[in-house]
Amino acid sequence: MIPRYSRPDMVAIWSPETKFRIWFEIEAHACDAMADLGVIPRENAQAVWKAKDVEFDVARIDEIEAVTKHDVIAFLTHLSEIVGADAARFVHQGMTSSDVLDTTFNVQLVRAADILIADMKELLAALKRRAYEHKETVRIGRSHGIHAEPTTMGLTFARFYAEMERNLNRLEKARFEVATGAISGAVGTFANIDPRIEEHVCAQMGLEPEPISTQVIPRDRHAAFFAALGVVASSIENIAIEIRHMQRTEVLEAEEFFSAGQKGSSAMPHKRNPVLTENLTGLARLVRMAVVPAMENVALWHERDISHSSVERNIGPDTTVTLDFALARLTQVIDKLVIYPENMLANLHKFRGLVMSQRVLLALTQAGVSREDAYTLVQRNAMKVWEEGKDFKTELLADADVTAALSPAEIEEKFDMAYHTKHVDTIFKRVFKD
Amino acid sequence: MIPRYSRPDMVAIWSPETKFRIWFEIEAHACDAMADLGVIPRENAQAVWKAKDVEFDVARIDEIEAVTKHDVIAFLTHLSEIVGADAARFVHQGMTSSDVLDTTFNVQLVRAADILIADMKELLAALKRRAYEHKETVRIGRSHGIHAEPTTMGLTFARFYAEMERNLNRLEKARFEVATGAISGAVGTFANIDPRIEEHVCAQMGLEPEPISTQVIPRDRHAAFFAALGVVASSIENIAIEIRHMQRTEVLEAEEFFSAGQKGSSAMPHKRNPVLTENLTGLARLVRMAVVPAMENVALWHERDISHSSVERNIGPDTTVTLDFALARLTQVIDKLVIYPENMLANLHKFRGLVMSQRVLLALTQAGVSREDAYTLVQRNAMKVWEEGKDFKTELLADADVTAALSPAEIEEKFDMAYHTKHVDTIFKRVFKD
Amino acid sequence: MIPRYSRPDMVAIWSPETKFRIWFEIEAHACDAMADLGVIPRENAQAVWKAKDVEFDVARIDEIEAVTKHDVIAFLTHLSEIVGADAARFVHQGMTSSDVLDTTFNVQLVRAADILIADMKELLAALKRRAYEHKETVRIGRSHGIHAEPTTMGLTFARFYAEMERNLNRLEKARFEVATGAISGAVGTFANIDPRIEEHVCAQMGLEPEPISTQVIPRDRHAAFFAALGVVASSIENIAIEIRHMQRTEVLEAEEFFSAGQKGSSAMPHKRNPVLTENLTGLARLVRMAVVPAMENVALWHERDISHSSVERNIGPDTTVTLDFALARLTQVIDKLVIYPENMLANLHKFRGLVMSQRVLLALTQAGVSREDAYTLVQRNAMKVWEEGKDFKTELLADADVTAALSPAEIEEKFDMAYHTKHVDTIFKRVFKD
Amino acid sequence: MIPRYSRPDMVAIWSPETKFRIWFEIEAHACDAMADLGVIPRENAQAVWKAKDVEFDVARIDEIEAVTKHDVIAFLTHLSEIVGADAARFVHQGMTSSDVLDTTFNVQLVRAADILIADMKELLAALKRRAYEHKETVRIGRSHGIHAEPTTMGLTFARFYAEMERNLNRLEKARFEVATGAISGAVGTFANIDPRIEEHVCAQMGLEPEPISTQVIPRDRHAAFFAALGVVASSIENIAIEIRHMQRTEVLEAEEFFSAGQKGSSAMPHKRNPVLTENLTGLARLVRMAVVPAMENVALWHERDISHSSVERNIGPDTTVTLDFALARLTQVIDKLVIYPENMLANLHKFRGLVMSQRVLLALTQAGVSREDAYTLVQRNAMKVWEEGKDFKTELLADADVTAALSPAEIEEKFDMAYHTKHVDTIFKRVFKD
Repeated sequence: MIPRYSRPDMVAIWSPETKFRIWFEIEAHACDAMADLGVIPRENAQAVWKAKDVEFDVARIDEIEAVTKHDVIAFLTHLSEIVGADAARFVHQGMTSSDVLDTTFNVQLVRAADILIADMKELLAALKRRAYEHKETVRIGRSHGIHAEPTTMGLTFARFYAEMERNLNRLEKARFEVATGAISGAVGTFANIDPRIEEHVCAQMGLEPEPISTQVIPRDRHAAFFAALGVVASSIENIAIEIRHMQRTEVLEAEEFFSAGQKGSSAMPHKRNPVLTENLTGLARLVRMAVVPAMENVALWHERDISHSSVERNIGPDTTVTLDFALARLTQVIDKLVIYPENMLANLHKFRGLVMSQRVLLALTQAGVSREDAYTLVQRNAMKVWEEGKDFKTELLADADVTAALSPAEIEEKFDMAYHTKHVDTIFKRVFKD
Repeated sequence: MIPRYSRPDMVAIWSPETKFRIWFEIEAHACDAMADLGVIPRENAQAVWKAKDVEFDVARIDEIEAVTKHDVIAFLTHLSEIVGADAARFVHQGMTSSDVLDTTFNVQLVRAADILIADMKELLAALKRRAYEHKETVRIGRSHGIHAEPTTMGLTFARFYAEMERNLNRLEKARFEVATGAISGAVGTFANIDPRIEEHVCAQMGLEPEPISTQVIPRDRHAAFFAALGVVASSIENIAIEIRHMQRTEVLEAEEFFSAGQKGSSAMPHKRNPVLTENLTGLARLVRMAVVPAMENVALWHERDISHSSVERNIGPDTTVTLDFALARLTQVIDKLVIYPENMLANLHKFRGLVMSQRVLLALTQAGVSREDAYTLVQRNAMKVWEEGKDFKTELLADADVTAALSPAEIEEKFDMAYHTKHVDTIFKRVFKD
Repeated sequence: MIPRYSRPDMVAIWSPETKFRIWFEIEAHACDAMADLGVIPRENAQAVWKAKDVEFDVARIDEIEAVTKHDVIAFLTHLSEIVGADAARFVHQGMTSSDVLDTTFNVQLVRAADILIADMKELLAALKRRAYEHKETVRIGRSHGIHAEPTTMGLTFARFYAEMERNLNRLEKARFEVATGAISGAVGTFANIDPRIEEHVCAQMGLEPEPISTQVIPRDRHAAFFAALGVVASSIENIAIEIRHMQRTEVLEAEEFFSAGQKGSSAMPHKRNPVLTENLTGLARLVRMAVVPAMENVALWHERDISHSSVERNIGPDTTVTLDFALARLTQVIDKLVIYPENMLANLHKFRGLVMSQRVLLALTQAGVSREDAYTLVQRNAMKVWEEGKDFKTELLADADVTAALSPAEIEEKFDMAYHTKHVDTIFKRVFKD
Repeated sequence: MIPRYSRPDMVAIWSPETKFRIWFEIEAHACDAMADLGVIPRENAQAVWKAKDVEFDVARIDEIEAVTKHDVIAFLTHLSEIVGADAARFVHQGMTSSDVLDTTFNVQLVRAADILIADMKELLAALKRRAYEHKETVRIGRSHGIHAEPTTMGLTFARFYAEMERNLNRLEKARFEVATGAISGAVGTFANIDPRIEEHVCAQMGLEPEPISTQVIPRDRHAAFFAALGVVASSIENIAIEIRHMQRTEVLEAEEFFSAGQKGSSAMPHKRNPVLTENLTGLARLVRMAVVPAMENVALWHERDISHSSVERNIGPDTTVTLDFALARLTQVIDKLVIYPENMLANLHKFRGLVMSQRVLLALTQAGVSREDAYTLVQRNAMKVWEEGKDFKTELLADADVTAALSPAEIEEKFDMAYHTKHVDTIFKRVFKD
């Protein structure tokens, strides 16, 4: 987690304060459930809630941990300092540290997912707005970086919208994957704790009880979670690279936003760098690199080993914080992206109509010209465009062999942009369903 | 794809024969749709279906491709040889190669997913059967590879079942991710082909139309697909490692199956290697290694570049074939796994009752002994077990300070296995829902 | 390994024929060493060499393996069929299968490395030739895809040369990493075989004896080997992406080669796709994906487990065959790359001198103009270029405030390309050392 | 970088204070070189060194950066506050930010490598000491987790030593890879700065001049650097897994150290978890996950894009800090590892001599017994051991058919440990070269 690429709400999820708050809630709800079951006195359970609005003293807990060498015991000791030894005496009864730690990790991941889902919705709103704005803004479509056929900037935004809507769905599934908790004891048998306590705590914490846990919640869930984040990050890279291409000097179909002041002050107006989307390209790699270790974490030894822990201490905060930042940054980039429709047209016409050569070829054959002859006709006019800088349509209209097969109106029609945009509405309906 | 780790049905999906068969179906269905729209004559569309039951001649297509340098054109030429030039003349009209290639790739992935889903169901059946068989077979649960508390072999199988059921769900979602087709032209605008043709072809091929494609179907879908396979592979590794541990000489709680013949003939009965699960560990790495390149494939340039293609030519067949083989091998391993309950008990008792020391400690404090005294009592008896090979329960029963706090019956109860298995039914109900 | 991306010499290294040939050589040399030590009769050792020029019958060996279920035994049986049971009776004495298999794998990797090293030298030769050819061909340097300052195409080739020379060095080190053999028995103790046999066999096979092996040669060596290939692949991607950028329609500073025929026949001269370098981008991902599993292979259990084996059966051939093909393809691309110096100049001048604005700014301040004033002067002329399409130098020469500080000659000098190329010789000397 | 898994010296390399210190040194040395070349006055160059022993005020620099939005300019402004505007006016002349940033990053990586190299030497010393200590401590060698033949604990340590010595070599090469600097201007042409300045600065900073840079130092160097760290991490995992296996309850051949106090106080002497090596397993994954993004960083656009930067801000500190911590932790684990030779012997004898069955089989055939008969003899005695718990040697000595072929002394010899350890000296000489 790099401070410059982080936002406070997501960072807060991973703070010690939040962690201890969740630990407290788990322990207190467990006490309630034990009281419900008659295992501990109701008043002890109630007394624990005295700490409900207390800010836990992280420094004090660290101090105790330095002695006890155990984080959960340190916290419980501090809790006992707050609520009193008597009230605290049944706290954590029958539980193991992992019951608290694993359930807490999932609470954090769920909250992180909630932020990411909200981020994604904002990104979708921006993409949709820009898609409608540029629904009919014609630009050249490119395969292999080479001009192919016209498309529109609205379709570009629309496909990013569709991709990100799939990613919203993936994030929701990822959230579901990790929305479980476990209070099942040292090897998951509930030997020392009633399963109903797990049920109560999970319900209160917004989780489902893990159907079967060992000492830990199974890590295939987390692998699926981080894999989903990796896919989202890859889609961010996809959009980022499109914008980087659009902004490169020779293309200049769009630029990342810059304040009026920035613009006015520049002595080098040609030098506005797409640093935000370049940065997003790098951030995508950072999110993606967590996928493989998260998968390596799945195969734990027997009922648990702790090899996954150090990995998760890193990738838990790092990938969620980075992805949150990246989504927000991308939303801002999309929202304010400066589009240059005139440059799009200029690029489209760079080879003076040559991008329409295939339509002309097809029209000639459909008009009864043999494939070989049609090819020769297109080629000889295309070469004048390519080598001598002529205009393709002008040349075709001046070629008697061509006009013998196609009327001027038919030739003109081949250069009509509406031919290429006629299904934009259909596609928008598919994508935006409205 | 390594022949020795492959099965014929999955391999067949990736054969040239299958590929050309799918190409044919897409082209023929497209002709039908064009006829429906009145774009081409019905009889031409019908004539194409003459090739329906013809085996395409792969060598002949290769031969044509050697000249045309284009695989789809080579195929169309061969098709024209079969159905006649006249019938064939409208085939592929308005389409681009990618319309066929990308839709075909997704058909193959969907079929592959179907096999994987069937594999997974067989694995689940085996896991369930073994879980019930060993529901009450007590073994020691281990955290960090160290004895913790008793659990049962049935619970071990049950947690693998629960994990693989999640993976079944992930495979179904992965199948859904790639179950789309696109017949949308050079940059996805449908400029040269009516969207209703895409709809018809997709419906016939069991796919949904891709809401918005460019020249290609967006690759976030495939990234999600291969990521799901990576999670499944990691779970296979998880089970494999459990079995490898169980089979190691000092543990010997289970062995991979071996025929009676194999057993009888051996002069080295101690030397049966868990080579199948070791192999599965390696195969898991092979499946997993496709995840990152599949994610790197997402960011294509503009409406498409072809960088993803060579990657998919490899990971498409390789990961599905490998995972199919691995799932089948794992099912066989689970199905025939030789379980040694007596060794499980022997291991559990390796330290003559010491695994119960925590329960005794807790009981002493609950009986009113101070925590410090309880600790001392447990410790002095535990050390006799650890250092002198004594039996823990016997020592406790002989320790007047212990029996002053706990009756012999109470001490006996601490060593009762039923304490640890009392919630097995609850857990089984959660997992198997029956 | 995808046939279309492979070349025969590298493929041959991984054929069954080659494998059995290496097995034979290892066994025969081991017999010689045993005879030297007096452990077996000299005539038996000599008799084994009868198979020296015999083509082993792969089908026959497979047939035997179907019965024996053991590849090395199947081979030895076949060898015995060739040289006679008596001659063969001491073959493999005291050895384990892994002695043969692991040493063979390293022989194959060394031979593969030799081909890759030769490939790299050819690539270097092509890069060097093109670098000198275009040493003074000016083009615009770009940071962030945005025009920065002039550089030369020769420098671009030179930096790829320098990068690939480092990769040559890495390949040589990678070769060294795996150039060891082991004939040390079941757990590496030489209990059943004299270390001098290992020494002799290794010397004959061009390997160093592994100082300490277990049953296997340690896999950190192979991890380092495949990691080096991953770095080489990443550099291939680096060059590929430069060329893809150069070929994109709006840039068009270079094109992948095409035969005169291809060019002449095209009706779409604007549509030449950089498919070779796009393909190389994908192939780079394929090579790179082997790095992590090769690293995961390092941690084997105790003296060996066989989890690495299936991984290596795949990545051994696949990465070396793919990288060999990629290097050869890249060499051809570089060798024949069509460079368009005139387009480079046109791109450089796209904003009519604006790329020199920083030099002018600096010159003004050095001429005593305050930083603020200099900025204003540059800005007001730059904006005329940017917004009105004027020429920067012309505007500066016409601006009295500018000419008050800089003489026309001084202004002219700021637009002199020689300023930017003056150290090209120095850099070439550093890179090519000649 | 997780604080709990970090050590101060490595962390300090990545502090803002260190970064600014290096920036200063680069700038000041560059001024000296400019003065040498007569480009700037000597007294200005000398005046810059006034800041030599000044602690830079990070908060003040941040404050300036908040206004200037540029880190290097903020630093230069602060420097100017320290040494005076006049002295500072030539600082950074002709340089670009990347000249400073990239050279600084490599200085940091070189210093990090120096620490890692020192760490590795300490690890090697510990491994060597333990290897000699347990040179003759016999334990069973295992393939596939199954008992194979005896080896010694010294050989285990020795092979880790050999592996880590290779890693030392790899770290030294990795250090060499990144030990270059570049002061070459906006696109690497030295247009605005003399190459001799780069030479001087590099010499002073302990670097080689990068033969050819663009705006950046080429990233294949860094890919190779992080790949080397990934290999080292994988070897750490290799050792960690060996120890985790040794410590598992059923094996118990070693335990991670614990203080006398820890031991004495335990009421659960059987429950000492190998948490340090489990942690190392996880840390290895964290280091390894940087390898792929470092390789993805190689392919920058043209003369540079900034996508690599965010990746490196993370993996630069994170991998070096984590690997430093891991190496130090592993050294401590090795140094204090508690070895249980008696348990090693007990494990070796678990099947009462069966591990010698292959030697007996071989001896019988060498004594003239047919292979089939020998097999039968071994098998019938082995089965009594396996199924009835008998002792193998005792059974053989009592089997008249066996003793007809082998004398009691010959049989005894087959169970002699010295047979297996006879080449330990040879191997130690190879490994330790002393």
